[in-house]
Amino acid sequence: MKTGIIGGTGGMGRLFSEVFKKAGHEVLIAGRKTEITWEDAARLSDIVIISVPIRDTISVIHEIAPLLGEHQLLADLTSLKISPVKAMLTSKARVIGFHPMFGPTAGTIRGQTIVATPARCNEDDLRFFKDLFEEQGARVTITTADEHDRMMAVIQGLTHFKAILLAGTMRRLGISPADTESYISPVYRIETGIAGRLLAQNPELYADILCMNPQVPAVLEMCHKAFLEISGMVNKGDKDALAREFLASREWYGSFCELAQKETDLLIQEMVNW
Amino acid sequence: MKTGIIGGTGGMGRLFSEVFKKAGHEVLIAGRKTEITWEDAARLSDIVIISVPIRDTISVIHEIAPLLGEHQLLADLTSLKISPVKAMLTSKARVIGFHPMFGPTAGTIRGQTIVATPARCNEDDLRFFKDLFEEQGARVTITTADEHDRMMAVIQGLTHFKAILLAGTMRRLGISPADTESYISPVYRIETGIAGRLLAQNPELYADILCMNPQVPAVLEMCHKAFLEISGMVNKGDKDALAREFLASREWYGSFCELAQKETDLLIQEMVNW
Repeated sequence: MKTGIIGGTGGMGRLFSEVFKKAGHEVLIAGRKTEITWEDAARLSDIVIISVPIRDTISVIHEIAPLLGEHQLLADLTSLKISPVKAMLTSKARVIGFHPMFGPTAGTIRGQTIVATPARCNEDDLRFFKDLFEEQGARVTITTADEHDRMMAVIQGLTHFKAILLAGTMRRLGISPADTESYISPVYRIETGIAGRLLAQNPELYADILCMNPQVPAVLEMCHKAFLEISGMVNKGDKDALAREFLASREWYGSFCELAQKETDLLIQEMVNW
Repeated sequence: MKTGIIGGTGGMGRLFSEVFKKAGHEVLIAGRKTEITWEDAARLSDIVIISVPIRDTISVIHEIAPLLGEHQLLADLTSLKISPVKAMLTSKARVIGFHPMFGPTAGTIRGQTIVATPARCNEDDLRFFKDLFEEQGARVTITTADEHDRMMAVIQGLTHFKAILLAGTMRRLGISPADTESYISPVYRIETGIAGRLLAQNPELYADILCMNPQVPAVLEMCHKAFLEISGMVNKGDKDALAREFLASREWYGSFCELAQKETDLLIQEMVNW
């Protein structure tokens, strides 16, 4: 089996080229500076994988889509699925979208989750990838591009937004992590740590994940509604309403709360021990 | 030395009665159902410590304040400091506020932070408590009640608010932690875990911390300003503005970002290994 990875010289491309090599594939790596061109990889491969930065994904897909035939499988590794899948469907190839729920620093796919959004492919194609990834220790979650983007608007969008919001609020207040150092509580340390971790990374990647997921604005709108309602209770000093809000969310989270307490106990122990 | 703890039968009261006993004090424990009354403890002790729920603190202080003289030391253990300290100053006693940055489940004060806000006391009084707590392994941070409440509005207020906001947004969207289970990413898991942990606890305590700190509304107002600015960039798809916001906060957080990445790497490893 011949697999071509377009953007194969990047972190994710290299990680997945190892995955396919380990599965016995001949892998063609096509980057901007490789001898093998995108066109070569697209024409010569049974499976073509797009592994380029989010903001370039659609234009790269449109560039190579006309070169592909029905006998080929086209897939991508982008954090969003609606628009890349739509772009891939302009080709004649069988199409399946993937979103690895981890960064290239993970090193391998063992213990990680890969979301698959099959679009125009048969049962065997899906089974083929599922077996390949699962044999190397990954979990595969199968869903639609719509549902994927809706979930990611919460899992990535809301989480990243909250981290940028926490740091942005502290900056606007003129309070830095160093100012709060001598008052530290472990939960606060974890939350600012998550914000700091995100800020240490690539701004374009996070800007893209937030700006290019069409479901994010609806999630932020609901978050704003909740913000106004909850901050309204605080500003009015309405402790009873706030306790009711708290209890309604406890009920909604259900048994996850107790599990979360046990898990975070361990994280907090880690923080206190440092 | 005789130390009276009013509210001494609660979790924090019991923890601190052990601290004072270990330091060689005779401890009088006065709860609602103890033989020793609040009045006994107030009249008979050299040091009087108020350890009752936040919402009762002010009224309890006002009840016992008239019984105290200049030869006595009055202190409290409340998560807020401006209003308890102000109430304690209506007595004739020397006054110092404390905020243990941990819950009674910590078991001991070893490795924990205690914030002290001396109000009307001498150097020796402050030194006395500092030595006592530090000998048992705690860190003591000395500041003013104003500065304490301003920092807590961020460290507790903003953190707790964000957790309640995350859960409240998910509830309003109709998405539960179980729905997102198969898409899990470690950072999202930690953030929902922190929200779930908080929701598993006492709603009144968290409602009080948010509603009774006079500095919280200003912090939430700034957070709202940041929310509108950052969500405006997302809604307009203005990736460049979002990247600039990101970089400005990275600069503000400074070297904390790299430290945070190392710390959270360990936390994430914990999550992946579960």
